Amino acid sequence: MTERTADIGVVGLGTMGSNLALNIAQKGFTVAVHNRTIAKSFALRDDNPGIGDNVVPADSLEDFVASLKTPRLVLFMVPAGKIVDDEMATIAPLLSAGDVMIDAGNADFNDTIRRSKAVEETGLQFVGMGVSGGELGARHGPSIMVGGAEATYGLLSPILTRIAAQYEGEPCVAWLGPDGAGHFVKTIHNGIEYADMQMIAEIYGIMRDGIGLEPKAMAAIFEDWNTRGLSSYLIEITAVTLAETDPETGKPMVDVIVDEAGQKGTGRWAVIEAQKLGVGATTIEAAVSARGVSSRRSERADAGALYAGIATQAGGFAGDAAGLAELEEALETAKIIAYAQGYATMAAASQEFSWNLPLAEIARIWRAGCIIRSRFLDDIARAYDSGETVVNLLQATDFVARVSAGQGALRRIVARAMLAGIPVPALSAALAYLDDYRRPRGTTNLTQAQRDLFGAHTFHRLDKDGVFHHQWPAV
Amino acid sequence: MTERTADIGVVGLGTMGSNLALNIAQKGFTVAVHNRTIAKSFALRDDNPGIGDNVVPADSLEDFVASLKTPRLVLFMVPAGKIVDDEMATIAPLLSAGDVMIDAGNADFNDTIRRSKAVEETGLQFVGMGVSGGELGARHGPSIMVGGAEATYGLLSPILTRIAAQYEGEPCVAWLGPDGAGHFVKTIHNGIEYADMQMIAEIYGIMRDGIGLEPKAMAAIFEDWNTRGLSSYLIEITAVTLAETDPETGKPMVDVIVDEAGQKGTGRWAVIEAQKLGVGATTIEAAVSARGVSSRRSERADAGALYAGIATQAGGFAGDAAGLAELEEALETAKIIAYAQGYATMAAASQEFSWNLPLAEIARIWRAGCIIRSRFLDDIARAYDSGETVVNLLQATDFVARVSAGQGALRRIVARAMLAGIPVPALSAALAYLDDYRRPRGTTNLTQAQRDLFGAHTFHRLDKDGVFHHQWPAV
Repeated sequence: MTERTADIGVVGLGTMGSNLALNIAQKGFTVAVHNRTIAKSFALRDDNPGIGDNVVPADSLEDFVASLKTPRLVLFMVPAGKIVDDEMATIAPLLSAGDVMIDAGNADFNDTIRRSKAVEETGLQFVGMGVSGGELGARHGPSIMVGGAEATYGLLSPILTRIAAQYEGEPCVAWLGPDGAGHFVKTIHNGIEYADMQMIAEIYGIMRDGIGLEPKAMAAIFEDWNTRGLSSYLIEITAVTLAETDPETGKPMVDVIVDEAGQKGTGRWAVIEAQKLGVGATTIEAAVSARGVSSRRSERADAGALYAGIATQAGGFAGDAAGLAELEEALETAKIIAYAQGYATMAAASQEFSWNLPLAEIARIWRAGCIIRSRFLDDIARAYDSGETVVNLLQATDFVARVSAGQGALRRIVARAMLAGIPVPALSAALAYLDDYRRPRGTTNLTQAQRDLFGAHTFHRLDKDGVFHHQWPAV
Repeated sequence: MTERTADIGVVGLGTMGSNLALNIAQKGFTVAVHNRTIAKSFALRDDNPGIGDNVVPADSLEDFVASLKTPRLVLFMVPAGKIVDDEMATIAPLLSAGDVMIDAGNADFNDTIRRSKAVEETGLQFVGMGVSGGELGARHGPSIMVGGAEATYGLLSPILTRIAAQYEGEPCVAWLGPDGAGHFVKTIHNGIEYADMQMIAEIYGIMRDGIGLEPKAMAAIFEDWNTRGLSSYLIEITAVTLAETDPETGKPMVDVIVDEAGQKGTGRWAVIEAQKLGVGATTIEAAVSARGVSSRRSERADAGALYAGIATQAGGFAGDAAGLAELEEALETAKIIAYAQGYATMAAASQEFSWNLPLAEIARIWRAGCIIRSRFLDDIARAYDSGETVVNLLQATDFVARVSAGQGALRRIVARAMLAGIPVPALSAALAYLDDYRRPRGTTNLTQAQRDLFGAHTFHRLDKDGVFHHQWPAV
């Protein structure tokens, strides 16, 4: 019989699971580990001298469970979908009332709601937890978004607050609400990450095709930008990747990499949920869709040949200090708008599912550990903490000032790119959203007239209350 | 005992159901009708002299079923969702093996697949059928998109070919594939309709806010456009609605209507399915999202005040012949791109679900009866019928020529609107897609470098096959 010594158990020793287990072990907790290939559990202990002493591999699932202190905390880090259900079903019968199963993978929050209900009916507890930061974050301190019962979070918090990233001494982990709240917020985090990365890629495209800069020159520019308002992990690694040389060919690394980007589902989920909530998250949508277009590489090559003859104007992009400052300002402004869309989606979900999501807290736990970490998130937290009612980040005093100052640069960059034939789907979606959102009198009055004509959908009038239908001429 | 005389039965006598029943009756078929409020069935017969003779109301559901010839054809026209399941569950026990239940409402095609399976297990037959054309279409000839077993369609086609719209003698109805194929195609039809309407609304916005035209002047322009390439039902009714005067105030009708547009789900479904299929249907997405923004009217008013001070450039839009011709050309080009996205979504679904969707036929049955009906659809049918392999409409010879000729106008219009602060989310999404789609070397090589750095996602190389991971400097 194994002794009950482990503070927590981790199921699934892929890159993320292994790194999270080592992170836990390094913080002084005893962590039991289980993997379908048992040897991996022992390797994790044996290959990590020092830290490995806190890792408890087991010969069987029964031993794994037996090694856990009660109430048992079992954390799953396995691929999203059916595998999660399968692993949970295998282990659940070995657990006792009050034990906690934690899905720390990238789950669809709808699945998390379903699993919460099913697990809690059996007397066990369930936590759906988003972990961001990639493999390095998992190993040294991720950002952790927790959904479940608040009391259950109390069982986990002693470990989570230690393994999470720290931002100026504050751990980047929080309880965000019941059942699917944590995974929903993780989904929107990833959607914002898609938007951030796509907008950077669009600026890179302008630098490459509009100005004619070499990757190393671009790297220096992004490094410079990283010292100011755009300062963030993604800008930092943009500089690093652009500066890198391929050891095989001596060319810039980015110039040997194929322009076909995959996606793992969370970006798509973010778009789908925004649509279900009726929120315009068009910058995120543009980013996810751009990956889809990128994956049709041979189609793009054929289309390129077919449209090779079309005339576009020289963009008039400038690589001098003023031109680069304008690019920087455009990216910073579009970034505010993209985040505003992500936060609007969370605000709508919070209302729809009665989660009461702590929006300031979400910004705070994203300041370190996760892929979109940045100083900028501190500004967002301050906006939500300021005491003013923030219906949408674009209406927060600080951001009104920044967007007002930067929108001119964004306009000029987008307009030039459109004329030059350089695609900027996310930057232009951000600008179009800003202009649509700040327009008191829109154009769907025409849409409503049309719908009333062909479908008797009715409309409201500006001059009095009520619902009206007009007798339109026969068409 | 009622005589078995009715060729088909219609359940649900809302606007669409009543009109469809009258359409069937007018074509000489006997149609039994059933409605929760029985009186409505009798009113339909009594209020429609002549035609009403072919309408058979019933005192009960049992009588309704008993009045149908076998195999019985029962067509449901009730609101999408649970009501369909409820109505089907009520009637199914009264039917016999081989009888056909037809859902003619706007169903989510995922529900249609589920219902097909469930119904067919009971020995009954199921058809999911999209009907487009609004209330007038239902009454005088809609476009009908049928999904189900081909043999079952054979039972319906004598009626459907008569009640459908006719385009130069060809009925606008077709069997498109098994189970959900018909409702899927209807969903994409509606998505395209959203895009079409939004792009028209954006052009209207430019006419109003960029040029300063009055609605009646705009009506004349759209009427003119309706004689050429843009000729379509939606352009026609744009002219009609813009020309209309409010009898109460004497103002143009569009000027008294509130700019808040609702949506009934199908646009959203189109976006969600495109995302699931990994297809960039960004113009449709922009259109659906714009309705979401429009519905936040008080937020827009507040945002308008907060951003009232920002400087935008005069757009430089001209209301002279050249300026209007440019607008027309821009709209025509963006429309081709929007349809290309819709068709790309159907092509992807056809592959994903092994439907073998007849894309040319779909264009043909959309030429009359439905909301997006136009001559342009005849061009699409010709492209798919031409014998060349059409991977994407943007690669079809005819459209390459038209888009090449029109893209300059689209660029200038979008760039000017961006500078002027006039939102053109759908027009700009279309242009950005074109530029992204026709670019052999995109920018997601940078994205892949970043993903490999933070998540070891690996990448492909341009110079050799295989999957690679690079040792990036520590960040």
